[in-house]
Amino acid sequence: MKNITDKLIEKIDAIGNPTVAGLDTRIEFLPERLRKLATDGESAAQAITEYNCILIDALKGLVPAVKIQSAYYEMYAHYGIKAMYTTAAYAMSNGLIVMADVKRNDIGSTAEAYAAAYLGKTGYDYITVNPYLGSDGIKPFTDACASNGKGIFVLARNSNPSAAELQDLDVGGEKLYMRVGRLIAEWGNTLIGEHGYSAVGAVVGATHPDEARRLRELLPTVFFLVPGYGAQGGKGRDAAAAFDARGGGAIVNNSRGIIAAHLSERYKGMTPAAAAAAAATDMREDLAAALKR
Amino acid sequence: MKNITDKLIEKIDAIGNPTVAGLDTRIEFLPERLRKLATDGESAAQAITEYNCILIDALKGLVPAVKIQSAYYEMYAHYGIKAMYTTAAYAMSNGLIVMADVKRNDIGSTAEAYAAAYLGKTGYDYITVNPYLGSDGIKPFTDACASNGKGIFVLARNSNPSAAELQDLDVGGEKLYMRVGRLIAEWGNTLIGEHGYSAVGAVVGATHPDEARRLRELLPTVFFLVPGYGAQGGKGRDAAAAFDARGGGAIVNNSRGIIAAHLSERYKGMTPAAAAAAAATDMREDLAAALKR
Repeated sequence: MKNITDKLIEKIDAIGNPTVAGLDTRIEFLPERLRKLATDGESAAQAITEYNCILIDALKGLVPAVKIQSAYYEMYAHYGIKAMYTTAAYAMSNGLIVMADVKRNDIGSTAEAYAAAYLGKTGYDYITVNPYLGSDGIKPFTDACASNGKGIFVLARNSNPSAAELQDLDVGGEKLYMRVGRLIAEWGNTLIGEHGYSAVGAVVGATHPDEARRLRELLPTVFFLVPGYGAQGGKGRDAAAAFDARGGGAIVNNSRGIIAAHLSERYKGMTPAAAAAAAATDMREDLAAALKR
Repeated sequence: MKNITDKLIEKIDAIGNPTVAGLDTRIEFLPERLRKLATDGESAAQAITEYNCILIDALKGLVPAVKIQSAYYEMYAHYGIKAMYTTAAYAMSNGLIVMADVKRNDIGSTAEAYAAAYLGKTGYDYITVNPYLGSDGIKPFTDACASNGKGIFVLARNSNPSAAELQDLDVGGEKLYMRVGRLIAEWGNTLIGEHGYSAVGAVVGATHPDEARRLRELLPTVFFLVPGYGAQGGKGRDAAAAFDARGGGAIVNNSRGIIAAHLSERYKGMTPAAAAAAAATDMREDLAAALKR
């Protein structure tokens, strides 16, 4: 049976672009017409929703998936959460895979409540999860994946500089992120799909190509979600380290570089929609070139 | 200048009860009158809010603080988030310190967005934070603590069995949770209050008294939030290991044991409010006896 990662892989292949557009949508990215409508929490959340729909219209067919960064919605309390769910529903109705970047972590019935919130039949396709609490903190999520055809990406090696403080510690002959990587493979070993990849993936930053390469070799069944491209300094050739020999096995996130492309020198003068589409297309070319090497 | 932990310590001392009531409020805990009102997400969130207000009325004066477990609110999407904020505002207006157990973790501007959501001037008093991303993932929160007089509790040693999988790994002569503990002390070293404790605390499970004792000795400026009492098996004498020599330096969470006390054998026949009050009082006695030893 196909798992959610099979669906993701098939969408990536159909479009030829292993890019996920990160909807880390902030008021300052909005065109003036929408920005002016945002006078309080409720109207800000509505303006963000409207901008997300414009982006989704522009990006469908160019990217297989969007990733919604929960923090930028939680800022607006219940108005923001409504915006997040509305955005997800609109993206799904446009054929996009939807990831909620929530990095949730808890145990037992609390983790079950999070799984019910985000991985129910009508929830998101994937969420991100933090591994610090161990297996008890993962099983409620993998159970929901199995029941509802959903997926998770567990943090392994993050893209920020200080991620090394804990993740690079030596834990008896290997670094902590490698140990976490092996646990992620274990947690997902009953959820492997037709293309050989599990519904339980890993977050592996583009800013650490050597680490990504080691994890890619160690974990042939684990699909990678790769943050850090663009604004955080990662290039196509760095992100390429997260891919398998056939150029699969990973999807690279770009947030600001797509959704705020119209504010950059490169796409100046274009509408936000046109700039987002151009940036997604340019990223496809950059990744394709890097994966050919 | 007083920090939030000074205020917490003074409230604990005034009441004589280092107990935080965990509002992990689930529909099945509600009395039938309220349970019957919950027919969809919106009405469920309203019924939960009403029950929380009943609990807060019963518990004020008996406990210094409440901890709201976000997962049980996120289950109800935007309706739940509204219930969570309404509950927090009601608890604060009744003089309770309010902790949001959100275990958030992210970096840079994303972590800043979480800090704005939860540690703004009108937000919660404390939130819980996961340390897996290192200092970059903490600084936006400690900055908000400094600006707005708030606090955080960073996960160090969790109460669940599998927490050991990562947290007990040897990272060069000490276990990971000890390394995290030392980082927590560092992260909080500019936010120490008049009573000697920082606004940056640690989560240290009651189910691991030996670990708690080691952390207590190692971290004299770090206040502990102690989960795992009651339903998870921790007793007063286990929790006592998290306290300093004067019987301070920690607050112990109890969720189900207080908010669903009316469903237990011990308090059968009492109203939920009376049972919660009795359970909070019994816990005060249990902790007081354990701390005398």
